Amino acid sequence: MTTAFETTARLLITCPDRPGIVAAVSAFMFAHGANITELDQHSTDPSGGRFFMRLEFQTPDLDMSRDALRQAFAREVADRFGMDWHISYAADRQRMAILVSRHDHALMELLWRWQRGELPVDIPVVISNHDDLRAEVERFGVRFEHVPIDAATHADAEARMLDLLGEREGALPDLIVLARYMRILSASFVERMPNRIINIHHSFLPAFVGADPYRQASERGVKLIGATAHYVTSDLDQGPIIEQDTARVSHRHEIDDLRHLGRDLERQVLARAVRWHVEDRVIVDGNKTIVFA
Amino acid sequence: MTTAFETTARLLITCPDRPGIVAAVSAFMFAHGANITELDQHSTDPSGGRFFMRLEFQTPDLDMSRDALRQAFAREVADRFGMDWHISYAADRQRMAILVSRHDHALMELLWRWQRGELPVDIPVVISNHDDLRAEVERFGVRFEHVPIDAATHADAEARMLDLLGEREGALPDLIVLARYMRILSASFVERMPNRIINIHHSFLPAFVGADPYRQASERGVKLIGATAHYVTSDLDQGPIIEQDTARVSHRHEIDDLRHLGRDLERQVLARAVRWHVEDRVIVDGNKTIVFA
Amino acid sequence: MTTAFETTARLLITCPDRPGIVAAVSAFMFAHGANITELDQHSTDPSGGRFFMRLEFQTPDLDMSRDALRQAFAREVADRFGMDWHISYAADRQRMAILVSRHDHALMELLWRWQRGELPVDIPVVISNHDDLRAEVERFGVRFEHVPIDAATHADAEARMLDLLGEREGALPDLIVLARYMRILSASFVERMPNRIINIHHSFLPAFVGADPYRQASERGVKLIGATAHYVTSDLDQGPIIEQDTARVSHRHEIDDLRHLGRDLERQVLARAVRWHVEDRVIVDGNKTIVFA
Amino acid sequence: MTTAFETTARLLITCPDRPGIVAAVSAFMFAHGANITELDQHSTDPSGGRFFMRLEFQTPDLDMSRDALRQAFAREVADRFGMDWHISYAADRQRMAILVSRHDHALMELLWRWQRGELPVDIPVVISNHDDLRAEVERFGVRFEHVPIDAATHADAEARMLDLLGEREGALPDLIVLARYMRILSASFVERMPNRIINIHHSFLPAFVGADPYRQASERGVKLIGATAHYVTSDLDQGPIIEQDTARVSHRHEIDDLRHLGRDLERQVLARAVRWHVEDRVIVDGNKTIVFA
Repeated sequence: MTTAFETTARLLITCPDRPGIVAAVSAFMFAHGANITELDQHSTDPSGGRFFMRLEFQTPDLDMSRDALRQAFAREVADRFGMDWHISYAADRQRMAILVSRHDHALMELLWRWQRGELPVDIPVVISNHDDLRAEVERFGVRFEHVPIDAATHADAEARMLDLLGEREGALPDLIVLARYMRILSASFVERMPNRIINIHHSFLPAFVGADPYRQASERGVKLIGATAHYVTSDLDQGPIIEQDTARVSHRHEIDDLRHLGRDLERQVLARAVRWHVEDRVIVDGNKTIVFA
Repeated sequence: MTTAFETTARLLITCPDRPGIVAAVSAFMFAHGANITELDQHSTDPSGGRFFMRLEFQTPDLDMSRDALRQAFAREVADRFGMDWHISYAADRQRMAILVSRHDHALMELLWRWQRGELPVDIPVVISNHDDLRAEVERFGVRFEHVPIDAATHADAEARMLDLLGEREGALPDLIVLARYMRILSASFVERMPNRIINIHHSFLPAFVGADPYRQASERGVKLIGATAHYVTSDLDQGPIIEQDTARVSHRHEIDDLRHLGRDLERQVLARAVRWHVEDRVIVDGNKTIVFA
Repeated sequence: MTTAFETTARLLITCPDRPGIVAAVSAFMFAHGANITELDQHSTDPSGGRFFMRLEFQTPDLDMSRDALRQAFAREVADRFGMDWHISYAADRQRMAILVSRHDHALMELLWRWQRGELPVDIPVVISNHDDLRAEVERFGVRFEHVPIDAATHADAEARMLDLLGEREGALPDLIVLARYMRILSASFVERMPNRIINIHHSFLPAFVGADPYRQASERGVKLIGATAHYVTSDLDQGPIIEQDTARVSHRHEIDDLRHLGRDLERQVLARAVRWHVEDRVIVDGNKTIVFA
Repeated sequence: MTTAFETTARLLITCPDRPGIVAAVSAFMFAHGANITELDQHSTDPSGGRFFMRLEFQTPDLDMSRDALRQAFAREVADRFGMDWHISYAADRQRMAILVSRHDHALMELLWRWQRGELPVDIPVVISNHDDLRAEVERFGVRFEHVPIDAATHADAEARMLDLLGEREGALPDLIVLARYMRILSASFVERMPNRIINIHHSFLPAFVGADPYRQASERGVKLIGATAHYVTSDLDQGPIIEQDTARVSHRHEIDDLRHLGRDLERQVLARAVRWHVEDRVIVDGNKTIVFA
């Protein structure tokens, strides 16, 4: 469907399921000149289940301001159905920060797609615990900050990172991507940005948790390797899965071949997950995701 | 979403796109106690495009009979928006006939899934231009009819088939599946059942049209083979595509290996296409399909 | 490569790697009129590693009997390189027994392919701990035996199964396939047939070990499900993996949909693994497999 | 198999099939201290067919110089069996030039992998008929040349390109990659480098030949799109296929989405094909390839 990107808005809704939700929402939108161009919904169970909806609508014929729309929707629809909801406007580009360590493949894939216009975000900063990738990043015109971190300095380093991320000014990014960032974020850091930090796990979860997953895969003689993109929670690598994929391998693949293939998988899986997040296609439901892709 | 199969109904809609369709449909359903449990929609272009919608709804709380619902929907909604539409009830099992020649793999896959309850249809008859598969079919308790056919007898044979299919009683099946039926149906036959005859094409379309596609594929040295399920139109093998898939091959695959792999692909692709059709998930739009899978 | 199936033989070799193996083996074969038509080899490490080879050769021009060939190969080649090896002849069809419980999909896939000539084996017996599938099996002209089993009778039941499998006559089958057999075989049973019992695991290993894996997968919100075929060892579900595959799923898949998809995956993965075993394409190396597919 | 890259050599052979080839080759290699670490072979038909072989061997214990080895192999083995053959040494990096127009995705994927050490080649020059990508390329430290070309100047432009490619010095590159180069090379250009020019075709061949394949795919309503890497012959887009892949699409994909997905496919398919070529894994047989991957 061909629509002007700049005039597109999205409404995401989660609420208890009951009859009449679609009718109420769509009548509201129609009444106020919001032209629905995409609608996805999902219900876990029509009686007693939860209901999820994503609407894309066009804004040129809206009969009120953004603020007024928000207030009217709350008053006329959302409160009545007990909805968690939010509206976002494609023209308001999300701010996406990236944390990275030494492996550059996931980072490069994101910067590259961003540069080509495939990822409609602003990138305020890339932060790394190593200085290795500075030139790579700055070449894209993106700010790079080196924040060394070790066990002793962990708390200070995270405080420094939060500063760089704009917390003091109340301007934490909309999204942080861990593009092979090999340090564990503290619970206090993670809880500041629930369902707004995406990690790429170098394995098909649940599987091969821990160090050197490709060595584990090789030793187990698997015929497939995988990668998983998920939201970060304080429960390490157990957060809601956004996207996964696998690639076929055989006895001919040495551990280094698995690593290469794994990197290619990680690039693709992370790129898809980030795009879906940025386009407001992901709703988190407990420890699972609804992805309206 | 867990819902009682027997109380599920589906509404399929095609119409010119314009604001207010979702609101009108969902308000109507809500007003009459039809509890929407799934809603998919698609628009080719919000201004001047075409709009497609599939609704699943639950019938226990409907406030009127099926007939009354149909009339009310036409009067209150469909006429206003110029809709092509129909409502089907899962409890009314579709009647699916199968035409086959000598290859049994596609036929067996369908019969097998049907026997296991994965294909909620009735199978009034299997017709073949050979008698070879009679025992195979009758073993499932399904009626088998042998209608020999050659160039000279083509018209008579088709007339006989239409008889067996119940045309005289006005009871043509809802769906005919060509499960590797190697004769070309006449335009007059095909036009009796527009978008209700599914064929499995033994190739990834557009490609290798004509005889012995696996030999063609082998000679071209392809690295993938494919299969395509499509609706039959009078334009041979050019009808709307419902589903496709490919499998990886190499120089090690001889022509017979390609045939074996191709058969496996054909079974899977046809089974998916038939299930989607039977669940009213496919809308035909010109020469393309919208598949709400 | 087009060769007469009936005159094909295969030689499988495992030994410590060192220079000269290929030369010695191929010179021996050439000298005795064994025309090599396929050769695959793999080395884990040329210095100190292990070497694996699979040869297919044609027998019409052999200059000696099978027995003489075996003795000559041992004497002239195998002993010198410390080889584990065996020669099999395609004309000697392997004897493949099947154990099954109530789910018939994996069983049916095997019987079906066998009936179509895609699995060149004899099937002496299908044994089940339930009587449900008797008619299904006997319809293929295959012997079916019902051996009830519970905790109290486990040892007796296994003894009865071994009887039916021909142990007393020294005629245990070449291969046993657990086609969704839900009982755990005792270590003593398993050790009678090392690397000759194939199981289909209803999950992508390592993952979701235990009961009801599709419920586990659903609760974890995975975006892929999988299936694994592996040899059975006394370490449950940890035996050498032969083949794996995955299918993409989403929030729209209820647990029953996952089960259906999972069954389709299991059929395909098991069928591939069994065919590779029967064609002597699998060499077990510790807990891994070399699959010359 | 872990082997020192720098000491690896490869022998590729094509010849009429007949008994004794493997024995003769492997005996020769063994006799001269060439330790075989990988061996793949393929025969189209043992009687009257063609035979293909790829050997990887280690050079440290060779008992003669490269030149002497070449002469000895010709004399002792190759001439006897009528072999087309060549030996390459991994330490002699191939020289790979790239031609490109305006789309940078395929080019970037190659440069990126090259920079990461995943493509062991030298890149003497990137030539484009536009100047747009100069900065992108020079950033990698690679020489960029702009050679404008139109119908009137075609012959002159190709002559200029051949100059830049080093023809005058007798130093044409080992490989030219057309990374979305939108001009047709003349037959005279192509014939200078048979099976040494790789193109990425923006479609699954045979299919959608011609302009704007994604529009064609969209209009045909396909459920899969594809990409094909092939050698360039004077018969446009009909050269031997090296690698292909497909991605699943639906009615929700607009033409631009197909283009994005297609680009991702093209990057992956081209990268695999180039790597296989560079590692001497591809043998061309008429209009087909043997890929020992």
